[in-house]
Amino acid sequence: MNEYVIYSVPAFGVFGLLVMAFKSAWVGRQDAGDENMRELAGHIANGAMAFLKAEWKILSIFAVITAALLAYSGTIHEVAGRAIHSHWIISVAFLIGAVFSATAGYIGMKVATRANVRTTQAARSSLKQALKVSFTGGAVMGLGVAGLAILGLGGLFIAFLAMFADLGVNQVRTAIEVLTGFSLGAESIALFSRVGGGIYTKAADVGADLVGKVEAGIPEDDVRNPATIADNVGDNVGDVAGMGADLFGSYVATILATMVLGQEITARDTLGGLSPILLPMVIGGLGIVFSVIGMLFVRIKDEKASVQSALNVGNWAAMILTVIASYFAVMWILPDGQLTLRSAGFDKMGVFLSIVVGTIVGAIMSFSTEYYTAMGKKPVNSIVQQSSTGHATNIIGGLSVGMKSTVIPILTLAAGIVTSYYLAGLYGVAIAASGMMATTAMQLAIDAFGPIADNAGGIAEMSQLPPDVRERTDKLDAVGNTTAATGKGFAIASAALTALALFAAFVGIAGIDRIDIYKAPVLGGLFIGGMIPFIFSALCIQAVGKAAMDMVQEVRRQFREIPGIMEYKAKPEYEKCVAISTKASIREMLMPGAIALITPVAVGFTFGPEVLGGLLAGVTVSGVLMGIFQSNAGGAWDNAKKSFEQGVVINGETYFKGSEPHKASVTGDTVGDPFKDTSGPSMNILIKLMSIVSLIIAPYIYGIGQ
Amino acid sequence: MNEYVIYSVPAFGVFGLLVMAFKSAWVGRQDAGDENMRELAGHIANGAMAFLKAEWKILSIFAVITAALLAYSGTIHEVAGRAIHSHWIISVAFLIGAVFSATAGYIGMKVATRANVRTTQAARSSLKQALKVSFTGGAVMGLGVAGLAILGLGGLFIAFLAMFADLGVNQVRTAIEVLTGFSLGAESIALFSRVGGGIYTKAADVGADLVGKVEAGIPEDDVRNPATIADNVGDNVGDVAGMGADLFGSYVATILATMVLGQEITARDTLGGLSPILLPMVIGGLGIVFSVIGMLFVRIKDEKASVQSALNVGNWAAMILTVIASYFAVMWILPDGQLTLRSAGFDKMGVFLSIVVGTIVGAIMSFSTEYYTAMGKKPVNSIVQQSSTGHATNIIGGLSVGMKSTVIPILTLAAGIVTSYYLAGLYGVAIAASGMMATTAMQLAIDAFGPIADNAGGIAEMSQLPPDVRERTDKLDAVGNTTAATGKGFAIASAALTALALFAAFVGIAGIDRIDIYKAPVLGGLFIGGMIPFIFSALCIQAVGKAAMDMVQEVRRQFREIPGIMEYKAKPEYEKCVAISTKASIREMLMPGAIALITPVAVGFTFGPEVLGGLLAGVTVSGVLMGIFQSNAGGAWDNAKKSFEQGVVINGETYFKGSEPHKASVTGDTVGDPFKDTSGPSMNILIKLMSIVSLIIAPYIYGIGQ
Repeated sequence: MNEYVIYSVPAFGVFGLLVMAFKSAWVGRQDAGDENMRELAGHIANGAMAFLKAEWKILSIFAVITAALLAYSGTIHEVAGRAIHSHWIISVAFLIGAVFSATAGYIGMKVATRANVRTTQAARSSLKQALKVSFTGGAVMGLGVAGLAILGLGGLFIAFLAMFADLGVNQVRTAIEVLTGFSLGAESIALFSRVGGGIYTKAADVGADLVGKVEAGIPEDDVRNPATIADNVGDNVGDVAGMGADLFGSYVATILATMVLGQEITARDTLGGLSPILLPMVIGGLGIVFSVIGMLFVRIKDEKASVQSALNVGNWAAMILTVIASYFAVMWILPDGQLTLRSAGFDKMGVFLSIVVGTIVGAIMSFSTEYYTAMGKKPVNSIVQQSSTGHATNIIGGLSVGMKSTVIPILTLAAGIVTSYYLAGLYGVAIAASGMMATTAMQLAIDAFGPIADNAGGIAEMSQLPPDVRERTDKLDAVGNTTAATGKGFAIASAALTALALFAAFVGIAGIDRIDIYKAPVLGGLFIGGMIPFIFSALCIQAVGKAAMDMVQEVRRQFREIPGIMEYKAKPEYEKCVAISTKASIREMLMPGAIALITPVAVGFTFGPEVLGGLLAGVTVSGVLMGIFQSNAGGAWDNAKKSFEQGVVINGETYFKGSEPHKASVTGDTVGDPFKDTSGPSMNILIKLMSIVSLIIAPYIYGIGQ
Repeated sequence: MNEYVIYSVPAFGVFGLLVMAFKSAWVGRQDAGDENMRELAGHIANGAMAFLKAEWKILSIFAVITAALLAYSGTIHEVAGRAIHSHWIISVAFLIGAVFSATAGYIGMKVATRANVRTTQAARSSLKQALKVSFTGGAVMGLGVAGLAILGLGGLFIAFLAMFADLGVNQVRTAIEVLTGFSLGAESIALFSRVGGGIYTKAADVGADLVGKVEAGIPEDDVRNPATIADNVGDNVGDVAGMGADLFGSYVATILATMVLGQEITARDTLGGLSPILLPMVIGGLGIVFSVIGMLFVRIKDEKASVQSALNVGNWAAMILTVIASYFAVMWILPDGQLTLRSAGFDKMGVFLSIVVGTIVGAIMSFSTEYYTAMGKKPVNSIVQQSSTGHATNIIGGLSVGMKSTVIPILTLAAGIVTSYYLAGLYGVAIAASGMMATTAMQLAIDAFGPIADNAGGIAEMSQLPPDVRERTDKLDAVGNTTAATGKGFAIASAALTALALFAAFVGIAGIDRIDIYKAPVLGGLFIGGMIPFIFSALCIQAVGKAAMDMVQEVRRQFREIPGIMEYKAKPEYEKCVAISTKASIREMLMPGAIALITPVAVGFTFGPEVLGGLLAGVTVSGVLMGIFQSNAGGAWDNAKKSFEQGVVINGETYFKGSEPHKASVTGDTVGDPFKDTSGPSMNILIKLMSIVSLIIAPYIYGIGQ
């Protein structure tokens, strides 16, 4: 290999973005239906844009302040007698990361709000076409995220290398330390998008359901419900834009952490030590190529074909091809012979096998999530059965399913950490995460297709289209619920491995060689870290509750004060409900965000890196557990409720929608909403963001508390 | 001081037991009411005995097997070239610990089932007398637990010292290592009592409520409800016997851990190094004396006096006097000059201040629990408000209160660990826990008085006594709910500090000098440890759900098949319900128990002490969090429901029992039942038991995984 391999990285990114542009144009060319449909879709698109604009306004203030702090930090060149490899340009990297993250969310949301109505229209003719439109919408999002990530990382790395060329031996190190700013920007925007979007979507959903379905007795997505547009906007800002920003952050952080560890590897290297640093980016690039190929497999023949199988085939194709390609990439890029990282010796075969381990861990965690949340499987059925004795037993059932669902993922994760560590040291753990994340484009495509189909169904309902249209979108939506669950499993798995890689990178840069929880202050840090996911979750859940109450008041007011809504004679004021959700989510996302950003800084500068390491370990362990618990409990409750749509048999009797057990299952679903769409998925970003902040401050807290 | 101080320890224990016998006899002499009341009380007492007997039968098998394994381990004298200071007599210590723990539970339950009906009878005349009877019942339990613990520890230590006198320098070390068997016996019986009792009481409670209150529309504790006796039995086996065994275990484990660390202290000592070992036992003894004195303050003048204040005065008197006495004990017993423990140097003033820190930590944690669960305070009121929009928002409110309630206790605990560590090293952490536990007799008296009053109210209701009797018992019961909550805060705080002390002791004996979570396998251990409280809680909650379903079926069957129950013409078959709860709880306690016992052994022998250390840290952090979360959420839901009894104002309207918001609050209460009385409090024992098992196997896993 020669040194020009580095230029392949941004090329891969550009390739992803080109395919994305092509697919996006294709979506735009599809028929957007009749006047009425276009009007409704316009409401949703405008509502989503209104939220993004309001969010960006707040976030730009935050971004400017943080960039200023980072620029200041770039002027510090020495702490405790140790050189800091920083530069004020880190603030630019941060701003680019923030803008890229916002752009990734924007692209996803933009295409989703165009694909939704086009999917509805396509569903008027066939399931095949409806899948094609909705999945292409998801693919745009996936390719946008992966393409921007690889382009940003690769492009900036090349630029920084050139910029610091005169530094000599510290050139690479400084370039990477400055590149962490890019990751910080990505992840902090992700946190606010995920939390804000999550609060938005669930406040609207819960509010719409409580008054619409329960009090007024009108169906879901009824055009008479003032909160229905806000509800559909929520799917876009939470499930699409939030998810996109989340995975963009994970993707960047994972690759970056692997690069940080890679630079510490000593080996006989024809590239001057660059090869272990380039490897994760190249694998990410290959993942884009094979995700595009995998997407070709996602197609069905007729109405009776299985949508789930089509997605599975595409997903497995992308994963297997990427792993195979990784083998050649590893063999070609990495040098022969012994590689050494912090006293752990390994060879390139170990690195490749770590990638395999990462892929397997991701797959098992997705399967486990599916098992615990899928309709017809034992866990969901147990909740269905427990709905027969009332609301309370339904809740108890869901909580216990959620708690139990932590076992397989945690055992898998622990085994994955230990195995990849033995295969290739800490670099193995990091590259395992990179391998798992490589097919992010495909994962996100599958994931984002769900909310698009969900929205399409909403538009079909609101436009009062014939029932077979809604049937087709419902088929897609049902698959979308499963992919949403497995996507969450994937997101948690990747976040956990990423956090560990960042954790390892942090330890190296902070100049400590251990995190000994046998020391009292470190143990104290572990306790406090473990507590943070609890308070963070509480704030998220509470925010949804508060915002939903505001929404309930507003919907009740409109029903009361605007005569003729119920008779379709007057239109509800959709935009007021949109404004309430927007305002509430922006307001409520600040406190949890502040906790995530400020805690590591406060602890790090007061007690030093080792205590901060304990804190990070506590956050990671507790965050992964709370994330799995909440996401799976929520998913299981949701599908327990959905089980009643086909009718369920309890003690020999069949129950349908509207029965007492079904009512109990609706309670579980409502409790599960903030669990699975607000607090649960936020755990990923919480643990990653706190790790990145720690990594950024690591050089400055060197020596404190020793 | 001279060497005879050691004999003061069992003397303190005997003193406690003598006072207990005196008080127990006093309770027995009180009037047990009319024929009807005595019959009902007889049912409860018999049901409770039936449970204990069934439980003991299973536990004796477990105890014999474990004792055999321990006896075998006593024949191993060397591992990895290192001498093991063990002896087969450890199996005897284990059996004594098990028997003492069972006895502590038995004493408490016996007196509680006698005090309950006598409290009812006393409540016919005055509140003053009713408090006196119920509190004396609690005091018997408290003194029994503390007395047995101090007598057992002191007596066995003296016996073992004498036995190993010929070993010379290893005499003390061997005596203490053998003494851990006593703690293991105590803690493993505690686990099964707490879990089994917890399942019992909530299965009966939930089952009785679901059919009785909800379906048949008869009040709580109605004599026509077949599950009502089982429900009242449950208060005794869960809240009294389970709690007693729990705190007995904590008390013994705390003192033992302090002794283990104490023997490592090097100092100029007139007692040949014994003084830091004796100190925790002496402080425990002093705690008994001042608890007895504090109990004298618990009295009220008339009907209008505050029961809560009377208890507070007694509690504070006991605590403050014990701290003052500790000062003199520390100054008298510990040598002057520098004490050194594993490179940490400190003096005896630091040791005393650690005791003060421990007392303060316990007090803050109790206050925090009270704040988050007390009626009329902000957290409970928020749940009340959220009940107005239905079952789901009530549940969301409770979950978020529970999660938020972890913040203050965890910050307090972390601060307590760090402060006591700086004051007196690891010995400081351990002695802080000992200081907190010293007034266990008083704490338990306050705690056990609640279920006695609760039972008294039940008997009043079932015997259809005049309403003023029930009013008086309700007054006591309301206070009992608060003391139950604060008691749980105390139990969790003590368990956390105890676990840390055991953790430190484990590290010393296992021959490792750090637990470095930066190592991949140790981090894997931390993850798996963190997961255990989740699966353990899930199993407990699920067990309650299953057993409650059995109970519901049986109650429905009796209402259907026994004619005349509703018209008071036929008596329900109480004993069948008792049998169901008994059988279910015994069956369901085995799996969680096995997890707690087997995991540390499996991990320790496979991966070695450092990974096991990571596991323990994970269990402790996650267990404390889950314990606080679940206990407080349950307590808050309970009191949110109770708030409706006096009527609550939501959005300008007043709601009472039977209203829709009240129904939503009943759902929360039912979900909270297993949280606060089964899974939540089991966390304490889980973390302590796993630590003790690790301590026991520590010498045998020396060198594994290094």
